Amino acid sequence: MTFQDYFPIWNKLQTDQQDRIRSNLNFRTVKKGTILHNGDMDCTGLLLVKAGQLRAYILSDEGREITIYRLFDRDLCLFSASCIMRSIQFEVTIQAEKDTDLWVIPAEVYQDIMETSAPVANYTNELMASRFSEVMWLMEQVMWKSLDKRVAAFLLEEASIEGSSVLKITHEAIANHLGTHREVITRMLRYFQSEGMVRLSRGMVRLLDEDRLRQLQD
Amino acid sequence: MTFQDYFPIWNKLQTDQQDRIRSNLNFRTVKKGTILHNGDMDCTGLLLVKAGQLRAYILSDEGREITIYRLFDRDLCLFSASCIMRSIQFEVTIQAEKDTDLWVIPAEVYQDIMETSAPVANYTNELMASRFSEVMWLMEQVMWKSLDKRVAAFLLEEASIEGSSVLKITHEAIANHLGTHREVITRMLRYFQSEGMVRLSRGMVRLLDEDRLRQLQD
Repeated sequence: MTFQDYFPIWNKLQTDQQDRIRSNLNFRTVKKGTILHNGDMDCTGLLLVKAGQLRAYILSDEGREITIYRLFDRDLCLFSASCIMRSIQFEVTIQAEKDTDLWVIPAEVYQDIMETSAPVANYTNELMASRFSEVMWLMEQVMWKSLDKRVAAFLLEEASIEGSSVLKITHEAIANHLGTHREVITRMLRYFQSEGMVRLSRGMVRLLDEDRLRQLQD
Repeated sequence: MTFQDYFPIWNKLQTDQQDRIRSNLNFRTVKKGTILHNGDMDCTGLLLVKAGQLRAYILSDEGREITIYRLFDRDLCLFSASCIMRSIQFEVTIQAEKDTDLWVIPAEVYQDIMETSAPVANYTNELMASRFSEVMWLMEQVMWKSLDKRVAAFLLEEASIEGSSVLKITHEAIANHLGTHREVITRMLRYFQSEGMVRLSRGMVRLLDEDRLRQLQD
């Protein structure tokens, strides 16, 4: 499997555009925890995930975090190349959540092609619309949903991503995903534990009653 | 001043594309308060504001609202035509905040042109990126900023839009902009009043100390 199998609109590119991307592509292997992009950096480029998991989050002045979306195999990250559009006026940080293999497409290469190619521009539109939808979903969550529902939904999502009901995750990490404080998460998880929905141990949350967590999240 | 003076990329369209838009355009005059689009409706089309003011907001199941952006003269609203992109998976309501003159471009006409035109697709990208940036800004506000700062910022923004320090607005309307309850806004405004920053009367908020409101919002 090579880049062209992962890049969804490869066949809609002209030969010279394919050549230009191919000859400017960088392949990277990064360790879990690596910061691939942050707001201070110049344009890192578009990131196409071959295998692994990335997380995009925003940071408050006080260092609080909230996850705005995640990227899995075959996902393309646009906002690590926000310089390609002058209207992108916000900063995200992109971090590897697992060891990740990815390609980096230089921003100016992508931008040049997008400027003249309707298929690339429309694909970029769909990509942005899909991230936009995730952020709007998140906005609805933080506006209208109480934190117990959001913690329940997060635990179920993690279990589904990991394919396991035993989650190796700290309370701090959960807080950073949901934009709250560690103490608040610890209190909530202890309540879940007292209700028999989870069992807690150091750096670990074991889901005991996914049905009840599901009822809670709705 | 005609449509082509308001549509920013008119000159980048081919003649047949210009003809197609011109012959399918609808001009509408709507009263303050009119709902122009909501999630249940089919694709209303793209709205280009000639003169007036629109508000885009989302609704919770319980009927709470939060304003996600506003549109003024020359602004184009994409999300009233969300059918043009399958990745737009959220619903906004668009309401006239003032009597408004606007053009409606049918969604399928715009979509057809966008599919083959790189300039139109790239313009749409910039448009979406700019709304995305507004929503990210809002997300940061609701996540990290206390409500007193958000109310102060809202009052100052209103005063700037209206060009007046006397705002004809109800506590209910402010609550609907900020995604909170009327009672919470009333309490906050009374606190502002006790601090000498505003004076309240029925359906009216008068800003008395914009400097202190500005200090508060930061």
